[in-house]
Amino acid sequence: MYLAVGSPGSRLTRVTWMLEELGEPYAIVKAKQHSDLMRLYNPTGKMPALVDGDVVVTDSAAICAYLAEKHADKGLGADPGLAGRAVFDSWMHFAQSEFEAPMWNKLKHRLLLPEAIRCDVGPWTAYEFDKEVAALEAKLGGCPYALGDRFSAVDVVLGHCGQWARGARFEVKSDAVNAYFDRVLARPALARAREREKAA
Amino acid sequence: MYLAVGSPGSRLTRVTWMLEELGEPYAIVKAKQHSDLMRLYNPTGKMPALVDGDVVVTDSAAICAYLAEKHADKGLGADPGLAGRAVFDSWMHFAQSEFEAPMWNKLKHRLLLPEAIRCDVGPWTAYEFDKEVAALEAKLGGCPYALGDRFSAVDVVLGHCGQWARGARFEVKSDAVNAYFDRVLARPALARAREREKAA
Repeated sequence: MYLAVGSPGSRLTRVTWMLEELGEPYAIVKAKQHSDLMRLYNPTGKMPALVDGDVVVTDSAAICAYLAEKHADKGLGADPGLAGRAVFDSWMHFAQSEFEAPMWNKLKHRLLLPEAIRCDVGPWTAYEFDKEVAALEAKLGGCPYALGDRFSAVDVVLGHCGQWARGARFEVKSDAVNAYFDRVLARPALARAREREKAA
Repeated sequence: MYLAVGSPGSRLTRVTWMLEELGEPYAIVKAKQHSDLMRLYNPTGKMPALVDGDVVVTDSAAICAYLAEKHADKGLGADPGLAGRAVFDSWMHFAQSEFEAPMWNKLKHRLLLPEAIRCDVGPWTAYEFDKEVAALEAKLGGCPYALGDRFSAVDVVLGHCGQWARGARFEVKSDAVNAYFDRVLARPALARAREREKAA
């Protein structure tokens, strides 16, 4: 039984979505960012974390990669070999340090930072989001999923970013990227993950 | 012979530093961010990229992981097993999407963005940098290197962030983190990489 640690509606959803895709049993441990409870699992206090027996994995992309690799028979991980893993890794880093950044920066300046250091980052984050959407369209290159013809853990992380974008009113000015988000956000496993988080 | 593609003094240094640590032959292909040349290697136009025969790897952390794994006998990669790789991955994501972010955001608002959408992000980025330094200290937990007692590809990426911090006058308010940066930035391989980039 896995433990998925974090707050419902946050990046925790990437973990619960992955676990639902894999059909693995799990319990949700509710913990807020930077809380004492969260620091038991991650010394930086950032959520989410995954507990797998003695193993604790932090960072949502690292967790999704770990789960995909552990249950490789389910086909959600990297293509075989070093080159396959490198493609997978570069996608994951694109998702987290590039695609997600405008949304995360906007959220911080709207709600999370001390008021004295907030700025009006609306025009900047909208500008960067447009660039990231164009980058995602270029990277997809007409394929239905990040890794080509099959859904993978990369699409879980990117799909969560897409859900975030739509919730936070970042307009996706690309038919291809909108179609991609429609495709991955229609996964029944995501709907199940949302239900589990609501009930937690 | 590897090709390391990008601009000297940028995140390209993570690639040349890794190649120097490994003692592998390489040539530098100078290419600017978002240039037509860069887009030949990465559809998003972001540098750096690594070319290894038919394999092209993008994203500096993914490149360092690929090289570490390809030359696993040199001991710069993850500890064995899935849990070892998960720890390695979570460090890499911490370095790129968390530790590096304040510096990257400050650089963009100082030099790279259209002037109309720039903000005074100085107080914000200084505040966040302090938090990231504290997080790095917590994650190191008194160990000399990210993965414990041995230098690895994670320290290349983090070390490059440390070099960036010092060059951009982000004050590192932690003796432990300053000692860590002193340790990794003293690597002879980094000095060789800088020389190679200067001569490119």
